Amino acid sequence: MDKTSEKINWEQLNAALASEETQSLHDLIEDWSFEEIAWAVSRLDEDDRSRFLEKLEPEEAAEILECMSSAQAVALVRNLEAESAASIVQQLPSNAQADLLGEMNATDAEAILESFSPVEAAALRILSAYSDEEAGGLMITEYLSYSDHMTVSMVVDDLRGNADQYRDMQVQYAFVVDARNTLQGVLRLRDLLLAKPSVQIRALMISNPLTVNDHTSLDELRQFFDDHDFLAVPVLSGESKLIGLVTRANLQTALADRHEGDYRKSQGLVQEELRSMPLMLRSRRRLSWLSINIVLNIVAASVIAVYQDTLSQVIALAVFLPIISDMSGCTGNQAVAVSMRELSLGLVRPSELMRVFLKEASVGLINGTALGLLISVVAYLYQGNGWLGMVVGLAMATNSMIAVTLGGMLPLLMKRLQVDPALASGPILTTVTDMCGFFIMLSLATAFLPYLI
Amino acid sequence: MDKTSEKINWEQLNAALASEETQSLHDLIEDWSFEEIAWAVSRLDEDDRSRFLEKLEPEEAAEILECMSSAQAVALVRNLEAESAASIVQQLPSNAQADLLGEMNATDAEAILESFSPVEAAALRILSAYSDEEAGGLMITEYLSYSDHMTVSMVVDDLRGNADQYRDMQVQYAFVVDARNTLQGVLRLRDLLLAKPSVQIRALMISNPLTVNDHTSLDELRQFFDDHDFLAVPVLSGESKLIGLVTRANLQTALADRHEGDYRKSQGLVQEELRSMPLMLRSRRRLSWLSINIVLNIVAASVIAVYQDTLSQVIALAVFLPIISDMSGCTGNQAVAVSMRELSLGLVRPSELMRVFLKEASVGLINGTALGLLISVVAYLYQGNGWLGMVVGLAMATNSMIAVTLGGMLPLLMKRLQVDPALASGPILTTVTDMCGFFIMLSLATAFLPYLI
Repeated sequence: MDKTSEKINWEQLNAALASEETQSLHDLIEDWSFEEIAWAVSRLDEDDRSRFLEKLEPEEAAEILECMSSAQAVALVRNLEAESAASIVQQLPSNAQADLLGEMNATDAEAILESFSPVEAAALRILSAYSDEEAGGLMITEYLSYSDHMTVSMVVDDLRGNADQYRDMQVQYAFVVDARNTLQGVLRLRDLLLAKPSVQIRALMISNPLTVNDHTSLDELRQFFDDHDFLAVPVLSGESKLIGLVTRANLQTALADRHEGDYRKSQGLVQEELRSMPLMLRSRRRLSWLSINIVLNIVAASVIAVYQDTLSQVIALAVFLPIISDMSGCTGNQAVAVSMRELSLGLVRPSELMRVFLKEASVGLINGTALGLLISVVAYLYQGNGWLGMVVGLAMATNSMIAVTLGGMLPLLMKRLQVDPALASGPILTTVTDMCGFFIMLSLATAFLPYLI
Repeated sequence: MDKTSEKINWEQLNAALASEETQSLHDLIEDWSFEEIAWAVSRLDEDDRSRFLEKLEPEEAAEILECMSSAQAVALVRNLEAESAASIVQQLPSNAQADLLGEMNATDAEAILESFSPVEAAALRILSAYSDEEAGGLMITEYLSYSDHMTVSMVVDDLRGNADQYRDMQVQYAFVVDARNTLQGVLRLRDLLLAKPSVQIRALMISNPLTVNDHTSLDELRQFFDDHDFLAVPVLSGESKLIGLVTRANLQTALADRHEGDYRKSQGLVQEELRSMPLMLRSRRRLSWLSINIVLNIVAASVIAVYQDTLSQVIALAVFLPIISDMSGCTGNQAVAVSMRELSLGLVRPSELMRVFLKEASVGLINGTALGLLISVVAYLYQGNGWLGMVVGLAMATNSMIAVTLGGMLPLLMKRLQVDPALASGPILTTVTDMCGFFIMLSLATAFLPYLI
């Protein structure tokens, strides 16, 4: 990795960016990989980033955009002149175009769409309206399709004649359609090798191919590719017209994005953040979630205020309040993570609350007891009072059980309520378990107050 | 989804499993998808799971194993008779075999390896020794290779003659090797369409193809597939022999696993847990991380014990201790998540601590000030004491800044120390920021004690 930092001569780079001509930049980055270029671009200020892209050929600029995260790419394209932006976007594959336009605001997107032909623009508007969670949002629209009355030799002639253009397509299948663009079958290109030139491709094609439709969800697609050993699946619109295809690699990328997004959201980052973004945007995105959390925290801590009298008489309890709070977060979030995983593998359904409750209650009983015993010994040693140990230990054990069962069930409940479980489970969990934990410990302490003083 | 629960008749299923013959099970599951079968299997007890798999054809059982997570698959195979296990494992593709054997203990793995031919077993032992984080652990060894002096017609004859066998292979390339299995070039199968039968394939192949070696890391592979629009890349051993290929889909799966693993580990699950696993195993896996955390929590809370005198005089402070602790966790973990993402995208290098420090310090200043102001107003309203507001607000602001900068830098530091950042960042962060937070608030309170009473 560090070869790049050595390789980059920032003075030369700045000079090349400041210069009127483009050759010096081309010479400089000639032997950089696209990823090295992307890294260097992220280290420039906004104006220099635009200048950098505008000095490249649109094809090169598009390649660089493709190895960035979409948040980065959107920010970059938005800062370009509409004309340069359009010429770069035109070089991207259709699914990348749609993603990019989908994440831009309407005005910016329209400015770019104007550079496309009306037909292309209409197609892109449709594509960018699909969410990332359905087949329409994942599919690529670069595919080969042939009319069902064509012969092997006609197809081979077309392949030969357009070899250069087709070489960039990663697909090894062609689709066979009728005059109304209804899918008739799938043709493996390599099967053309084995056939006589005069045969009609409809005799060679795999008929009644399996398909998905544009609203097929990510989970259903995962199930499809788990069940079938295919590289790609055709996507049909509502009216059974062929509109694109989803490859296994498209799906894997989308699943990787979702996993990454779940982790990010569980830490309170609703949208992707990269440190090359403007400071105020980064602060604001984080602060929105933090302000909800601090309010929830204040609500939870208000339970402590209710028991101020008990606390003032047994001040040692104050030492254990943050421990109860932190540990219930830890135990509960483990159960959240297990449920998130089982949901994504299809091993648990949102309706199976009872099963999860029983499975988690048993783990909660064992681990709660273990943690409770440990903390009760510590509390006893701290003040030499066995009753204090009992109160703290009992509160820890009970609250761990609550946290574990609640943590396991929350993602299922969120899913049923159509709330994103990655985003909402954590804050709800910690608020509820903090309140329970404070309440259990302080009400137990109040009940046994004479023995604690 | 719920169609499956309706579809499954558990009584019939139990009867089919108890019966001596296999036909009734086959009839029952005839129109279930592999994923539905996997779900049903996870709902059976251990013995019935084994019985289920043993009643299927090895090919079918292998398909089902392939749509399970590896933790599930290992548990299932381990409980089978060695003989059935071996016949099922033989039906898996080579990378799945190696993964499975790599995750089993040595005795179980050897029992299965004995059923393979000595040559196959030796190859599998080598494969299963590779980690999931390098090309050797991802590659598949099912590929086509032809000697460099063969002609197009010889290759086409071979393809035609073995069409059934090759149809299962997802690869659209063949490799051209010399007599010593050194890679000479890559042949696109579809280019065979365009060539004369008598041409030698060495004239048709792409010479000097790009390759990776068996120890190429996941990050380098990601960079490779970002830079090159390939579907697959050949893998060479140390001595430049062709030993396999990594497809884009293999890589995407491995990246999705890594993202999932990072999220899981950040919640304290060192190994994958599924609720179909034995209770004690699940408890133990979670408890190991919880016990470390509770000890760290006790260490952090001991700071509170030092200030017991101050606390007993200003009992209101006890309400704010858990808030300080929770919020520093929230703010810090956001920065951890951003750093994890930037590390995985290659946008930050472990050596760039200073850059991260500056970028995070500015966010920390803004968000810390905002959170500090909010909590100081709450503290003032609670007790009507402006000095309490100041002490609590100042502690919150300072500690948020510390948490954010530390959270941003920790994953980079962990990476430099070769510790897994997903696993270690969280516990270290919360311990350090809890201690700092308690110390700052309570020492400020001690300094301003006369104004707080």
